[in-house]
Amino acid sequence: MLPDRAFFDRLADAAKAETLPRFRIGTSVVNKLESGFDPVTEADQSAEAAIRALIEAHFPDHGILGEEHGNIGLDREYVWVIDPIDGTRAFISGLPVWGTLVGLYRNGDAVMGLMDQPFTGERYFADGTKSVYRGPGGEQVLSTRACRSLDDAVLFTTSPHLYSGDLKTRYETVQSKVRLFRYGCDCYAFALLAAGHVDLVIECGLKPYDVGGLIPLIEQAGGIVTNWQGGPAEMGGEVIAAGNAELHAQALEILEG
Amino acid sequence: MLPDRAFFDRLADAAKAETLPRFRIGTSVVNKLESGFDPVTEADQSAEAAIRALIEAHFPDHGILGEEHGNIGLDREYVWVIDPIDGTRAFISGLPVWGTLVGLYRNGDAVMGLMDQPFTGERYFADGTKSVYRGPGGEQVLSTRACRSLDDAVLFTTSPHLYSGDLKTRYETVQSKVRLFRYGCDCYAFALLAAGHVDLVIECGLKPYDVGGLIPLIEQAGGIVTNWQGGPAEMGGEVIAAGNAELHAQALEILEG
Repeated sequence: MLPDRAFFDRLADAAKAETLPRFRIGTSVVNKLESGFDPVTEADQSAEAAIRALIEAHFPDHGILGEEHGNIGLDREYVWVIDPIDGTRAFISGLPVWGTLVGLYRNGDAVMGLMDQPFTGERYFADGTKSVYRGPGGEQVLSTRACRSLDDAVLFTTSPHLYSGDLKTRYETVQSKVRLFRYGCDCYAFALLAAGHVDLVIECGLKPYDVGGLIPLIEQAGGIVTNWQGGPAEMGGEVIAAGNAELHAQALEILEG
Repeated sequence: MLPDRAFFDRLADAAKAETLPRFRIGTSVVNKLESGFDPVTEADQSAEAAIRALIEAHFPDHGILGEEHGNIGLDREYVWVIDPIDGTRAFISGLPVWGTLVGLYRNGDAVMGLMDQPFTGERYFADGTKSVYRGPGGEQVLSTRACRSLDDAVLFTTSPHLYSGDLKTRYETVQSKVRLFRYGCDCYAFALLAAGHVDLVIECGLKPYDVGGLIPLIEQAGGIVTNWQGGPAEMGGEVIAAGNAELHAQALEILEG
């Protein structure tokens, strides 16, 4: 039996109980070397442990790929892909654009996914066929928007400093062609894309858990996520997400080099 | 009689009624040239009009400096400084790090201030002696944090692309010395500084209304805001905000050139 929305909600709630009380607690983050107390790492590790405990109890034959506590059974039919806090730099900065990411892969394809931002109360969930938002403003089924041209597009990337060499040149070429670009959002930008507020997200050097929970959100809202060669993004690396195939093709032509 | 917190709340609520319903409404923003409908501009103008109407009704002898509807009585003892949506690029992108800013100047000094983020439900208010946060997690009196060294500091700036020439060199020198820097937050970064979550905000080319509502928030939480020469920031320009005087001095030494 596959998990349902209620089970994903339990995962998100269990993570939230570990992350939110440690968010915005101020000076201790800066002085972690002196105090020996690092709330981000604590939140990260304990949130992932809480998620894994639920998965192991309810789906003991599934594999798990997690950021903090290693991998088990990656060759199984179903594998959970977990990033308890995507956007740790945002978390450290008090900025509520980090999220808890949980994806479910079936034979390597991301089929269900969750992004939860507990401070703003936003929860994005892809159930296998559709993507749904809950949060301020209520609940709604998501769809990406119809921007079909780079010069109309709003683009996000986490930081221009993460690119180097050829990748940097290609990224900057895309950036130079869009209507508006912004930096610094990690998973939150992908969720905004699924919700039809932005058009392109381009990243490099992602881990599977940085994107696993997000791919279903975008695909099931009508968007497309691939690597920079147009292949599957489930294993991370250089990733591009677009609201539709036409815009994706325009950016990919530049990014694939 | 000076305005009280309840009056600032009325201003924030009046602005929210105009901004929030136009936030995250999707495709129409992109296609504004085709549709003739621009929700950001509409929200900006109608929120400022709502704020001004309340001020004019209750404080008819005060001046007003506003982003959208011009200035009146700038030589009066009290002048209100209004930015109905600071961070329009964030607003356009669906990112809840824009804010409504209202400052009250007395003889050119910013003495009271408000930053309101209606999507997250965060309201930051400086009443003349202290700064207070209300929002997720409840209500608390704010204080900046004790980071006293650049190499421990978290720095925000809106975009590295806004600097050029000497200013760019000096900004980048500071950036190269801090522990963590982030881009893209406009007023939200100043609010995080007042709340003790970040240590430095550096900007260039600000208008008075970009910073007027924020100066009291930071000063009354224990921080310091000046221009890059160490003088008053009330008229905008190149601005630096820091959590304390020691850190401010270290950054200023580089920025003043």
